Parts: sequence; structure tokens; C-alpha cells
Amino acid sequence: MATKIQPLDDRILIRPLEAEEKTPGGIVLPDTAKEKPQQGKIMAVGSGRLTDKGKRIPPEVKVGDTVIFGKYSGDEVHVGDDECKIIRESDILAVLV
Amino acid sequence: MATKIQPLDDRILIRPLEAEEKTPGGIVLPDTAKEKPQQGKIMAVGSGRLTDKGKRIPPEVKVGDTVIFGKYSGDEVHVGDDECKIIRESDILAVLV
Amino acid sequence: MATKIQPLDDRILIRPLEAEEKTPGGIVLPDTAKEKPQQGKIMAVGSGRLTDKGKRIPPEVKVGDTVIFGKYSGDEVHVGDDECKIIRESDILAVLV
Amino acid sequence: MATKIQPLDDRILIRPLEAEEKTPGGIVLPDTAKEKPQQGKIMAVGSGRLTDKGKRIPPEVKVGDTVIFGKYSGDEVHVGDDECKIIRESDILAVLV
Amino acid sequence: MATKIQPLDDRILIRPLEAEEKTPGGIVLPDTAKEKPQQGKIMAVGSGRLTDKGKRIPPEVKVGDTVIFGKYSGDEVHVGDDECKIIRESDILAVLV
Amino acid sequence: MATKIQPLDDRILIRPLEAEEKTPGGIVLPDTAKEKPQQGKIMAVGSGRLTDKGKRIPPEVKVGDTVIFGKYSGDEVHVGDDECKIIRESDILAVLV
Amino acid sequence: MATKIQPLDDRILIRPLEAEEKTPGGIVLPDTAKEKPQQGKIMAVGSGRLTDKGKRIPPEVKVGDTVIFGKYSGDEVHVGDDECKIIRESDILAVLV
Repeated sequence: MATKIQPLDDRILIRPLEAEEKTPGGIVLPDTAKEKPQQGKIMAVGSGRLTDKGKRIPPEVKVGDTVIFGKYSGDEVHVGDDECKIIRESDILAVLV
Repeated sequence: MATKIQPLDDRILIRPLEAEEKTPGGIVLPDTAKEKPQQGKIMAVGSGRLTDKGKRIPPEVKVGDTVIFGKYSGDEVHVGDDECKIIRESDILAVLV
Repeated sequence: MATKIQPLDDRILIRPLEAEEKTPGGIVLPDTAKEKPQQGKIMAVGSGRLTDKGKRIPPEVKVGDTVIFGKYSGDEVHVGDDECKIIRESDILAVLV
Repeated sequence: MATKIQPLDDRILIRPLEAEEKTPGGIVLPDTAKEKPQQGKIMAVGSGRLTDKGKRIPPEVKVGDTVIFGKYSGDEVHVGDDECKIIRESDILAVLV
Repeated sequence: MATKIQPLDDRILIRPLEAEEKTPGGIVLPDTAKEKPQQGKIMAVGSGRLTDKGKRIPPEVKVGDTVIFGKYSGDEVHVGDDECKIIRESDILAVLV
Repeated sequence: MATKIQPLDDRILIRPLEAEEKTPGGIVLPDTAKEKPQQGKIMAVGSGRLTDKGKRIPPEVKVGDTVIFGKYSGDEVHVGDDECKIIRESDILAVLV
Repeated sequence: MATKIQPLDDRILIRPLEAEEKTPGGIVLPDTAKEKPQQGKIMAVGSGRLTDKGKRIPPEVKVGDTVIFGKYSGDEVHVGDDECKIIRESDILAVLV
């Protein structure tokens, strides 16, 4: 059985989408932008940000969501053949619905 | 059906207005200013800023509002042929009423 | 009907006063100071600063007040022929009474 | 009738004291110190610092107090012939009693 | 009897895993990444982060967990022949499950 | 009657001790240390640090205490012939008992 | 009777241990590490960190504990012939048990 990556705290595991996989509907992200936002699919979510009171705030996004995030946010990890990213939820700009 | 961009947290999706679209009434923004404030129309709003207690503060602006924001705030995304921006609500200076 | 600028959050719309408009009473601001405080009249006020609890603190100043503020605070916007400023309430030093 | 300067928030209006006006009792401030503390008389006080809960903390000092403050704190304003300063209460080091 | 290292606060004692020890399941971390995330096994955990209210938040990870963390996080200590690390829980990206 | 200096907020008025005045008991402070801690006697204390709730925390030290503090902390003031310092309580490292 | 140093707030008085004094059990700290963690014995503890509510959090360590701390943390003081350190509790990495 394969090992799974479970992000901690407010971190999110994302598999970036290649150009050909992108969702239909006319949304295209400029590849020349300095901070280059990028699309990806959420593979796993952490338990959420912890407030100063010790309360967890569940993430606004869920497994399977397609999201837009800053290309240089977070840390890269390899999952099998996929190059994934672990980023903080606050670095996700928007979800595609 | 077209995919829609739903901003997260206190982020706002804005379609910047070209000069010829600007609202009547004599408000003009200087194009020589260093931080160049710019006008735009709100396309979508996030759920709002999360307080340290875990409470969402709904945004003060709503879809359809024409707002003034710092030109270099936020991240660019393309929606169809439009070049839009995802910015934080706190980077919006004012709404035109 | 003219469009109006409604500042957001703790922002204040100010029309800077020219030297000849200045209020009587002997208060003069030095034009050689490094951070040059400046006088202006308040045109519009935002809903006020939002606390971490999500409570709005109404501004201490109101429309019509003549105030002193740092010359380089805030962002410039043109309202008709006037060059106005949108600044945060915390950048206003004092009100003339 | 003369216009008066009413400081906002936790700001204090101070008229710096010249050497010959200084209070008796042997307290002298070094004029060679790098950050040069200085004596002054309080002309007006703001409503006080606002806590994160939206509560005002009235200032510890009052009109007429002679205080010691950092010479380079705050902003200069002219009141008639006097060169005064608007400084934050937290920049006042001590009161002479 | 051997002395044990008990981390304080939100600190975690980790024994980094060598390449040949890595967990099965196809997760490989790139050794060319700038911030190089690394795998390790948790040897001891602190009492957890202290909130501003003085309440301890127990760590999300436990002794025996295999985790991913930034290679350059924390401080090195030697435990017998092992080179271990003491890092803050917030520097742990994910746990392998 | 002599004027007295009453420190504000969490500030403390200290008269630094010369080498020959130092307390017995073998405690010596290195005069070559970069940040050179120094001994002094407390002459007056402020009302204490103000929390975000607007509550004063009385200082842990009192008039007459001999304390150790960073030599370069705070501001110098002259009291008669003495060169004293006004420093924040948080810059006092320890009290000698 | 000897004078004693009583640290204030969340500060801890530590006597660093020389190599030959180190606790048995195989724990060795690398002397080539950049931030060189070091072992020491706790001589005195402060009343603990003060929360924003004005509540003291007693330290997790106690007099007599052997701890690991960053070599360059805190301030040096001489106690008789010993060179001791006053450091903040948050700079102590772990306690040896």
C-alpha cells in the first residue's frame, strides 16, 4: 500500500496542472507574470490554521478542488512520478468553481 | 458552462476599467502617480478576512461595485479575454457611489 | 449627478488646503519640515478601523473637519479639478477646533 | 478667537521648554546625548490609545504637565510664534512632579 | 541508563532518515531543491506551543511518526552516534501515513 | 523642594552604580562584554506596562532594588550631579537579592 | 552572605557546563555547528513570561535542570569565578532527563 502525505496545520498538498489539463471555461493564467499564479488540484489538506486561542479553522478548500496559487509558494515534494507542492492555505488565491 | 474564479479569504476579483469606461462625475486618477491608484469593477468576493477568533468578516464591497485600488496590488489572472486581478480587500482604497 | 468617493475601512478622503485658505488663529505649518505636516478638509470618512474581534471603530474625525496630516501620507486621487488624498485615520495628527 | 490644535488618538501637543524656562530642582538634560531627551509643557492631549477591543486608554499625562521626551520624536507644528510638537504618548519618558 | 533529550515548548526531536531507510510507497524528496525538504523519525516531542492565554496546544505529531521537514530548520544535536535535530513543530510540513 | 522624575508606563529610573559601590557577594559584570550589562539602583518606577485590554501590570521591581541591565538600554538624564537612566522594565535582566 | 541574581520575567540564569562535566549517556553537542547549542545547569529562574492578559506562565524548567541552549543566546554575567548567562526561556531548546 502506498504511503500518503498528510499535510500539517494550514498546509495543503497540491498537484500542479499542466497546460493541457487546465479546466475549460476560458481561464488562462499568464506565463509571463512575475509571480506567475498557477493552477493545481488539491490532493490532501491539513487540519487548518490554529488561532491564538488554540482553535483549528478548517480550510476553505477540499480534496479535489482546482485552485490558483503563486507558482513560487511552498515546498516541492515528489509523489511517485508527480512533482507536488505543500503550500499554506493562505497562499491559495482562489478556487475554480 | 464557463468556469468561475471564486477568491478565497479576504481576496477580491476585479476587472480593471479602461480609461474610456470610467464612471462619469469628474473623478480622474492621475496616471503619473508613483503608486498609481486604478479603477475596476468587482467580479467576485471571497468569504472575508478571518479574525484571530476564527470569525469571518464579510467584505465591505460587493459584486458590481466600482472601486479604486493600488495598480500594483495583487496578482493578475486572465478570464477569457479580460486581464483581471485578485487583490486583498485591504488594498481597496474606496468605492465609487 | 456626480460620482462620489466613499473611502473604505479606516480611510479618510481629504482635500488639502492651499496656503491662502488656511484657518485663522495663527497656526502655521513649516514648509521646510522633512515630513511636512499639511492642513486639509475632510470630504468623506470610511466606516472605521476593524478590530481583531470584527468590530468597527468609528473615526474620531468627521466630514468638514480641518485636520493636520503628514504630507506624504496616503494616495492621491483627482476629484473634478481638486487633487485629493485618501489616507488612513491613523496618519491624521490633529483636528483644528 | 484663536484656532486650537486638538491631537488625535494617543497624540500629545507639547511646547518645548527653552533652557531658561526649565523647572527648578537640579534636573538637567544633557545636550550632547545622541537621542537628546528634552523638556516641554503639555498644551493638549488626545483621547488616548485605542486597544484592539476598541477601548480608549486615557493618557497618563495632562495639560500643564512638564514632561521629558525624545527630541526627535513626533512632528513639528507652529502655534502662533511657538514651535510645538505633536508626539505619541509612548514617546514621553517621564513627567516632572 | 542513557540520558534523554526532552524538547521544550513546541520543539520536536527528529532523527533524519537516510535515503536507504525511506518509507516505501513512492515518495521521494528531490535532493536538488533549494530548501530541500527531508524525511525523519520523531524521537521526542515537547509540551506544545503556548498560546497568548497561557494554554498549551499539544503537537499534531507523535513519537514514531515519519515526517517531512525543511532540511535547514532547527538545531543539530548528537545523540550517541546519531545526528539529530531539534526543530519547531511549525517547521514540519507533513506526516507520512 | 527638588523636582522629581516620575517615569511613565513601564519605564524605570535607574542610578547606575560605580565599580566601588557594587554589591558584595562576588558578582562582577564583565566590562569587556559587547552588550555590557551594568548594575544600578532603582530611583523611581512607572505605573507598569499596559496590556492590550488596558490593564496595567505593576513592575516586578521596586524603588531601592539593585538591578542588572544592558548598558546601552534607555535614555540618559541628569538628576543633580547624577547621570541616571530611564529604561523599560523589559530591559532589566535581573534583580540582586 | 553572598548576593544572589534573581532573573526577571521569562529569564533563566544558567551556568554553562564544560566538556568534562557533561552528563553521561552519549549526548554530545557538535562544537563545529554554526549556532553551537551548549549544555548548562540552571541556577535560578524568573517568574515566567507575562501574557497579554497580565498572567504569568511559570517556566517549564527548574533550578538544577541540565538544559541545551544556543551558545550565543542571552547576556553574560560573572558569579564569583563562574561565567554565567541570563537567557530567555524561549532560547532553551531542551532539558536532559
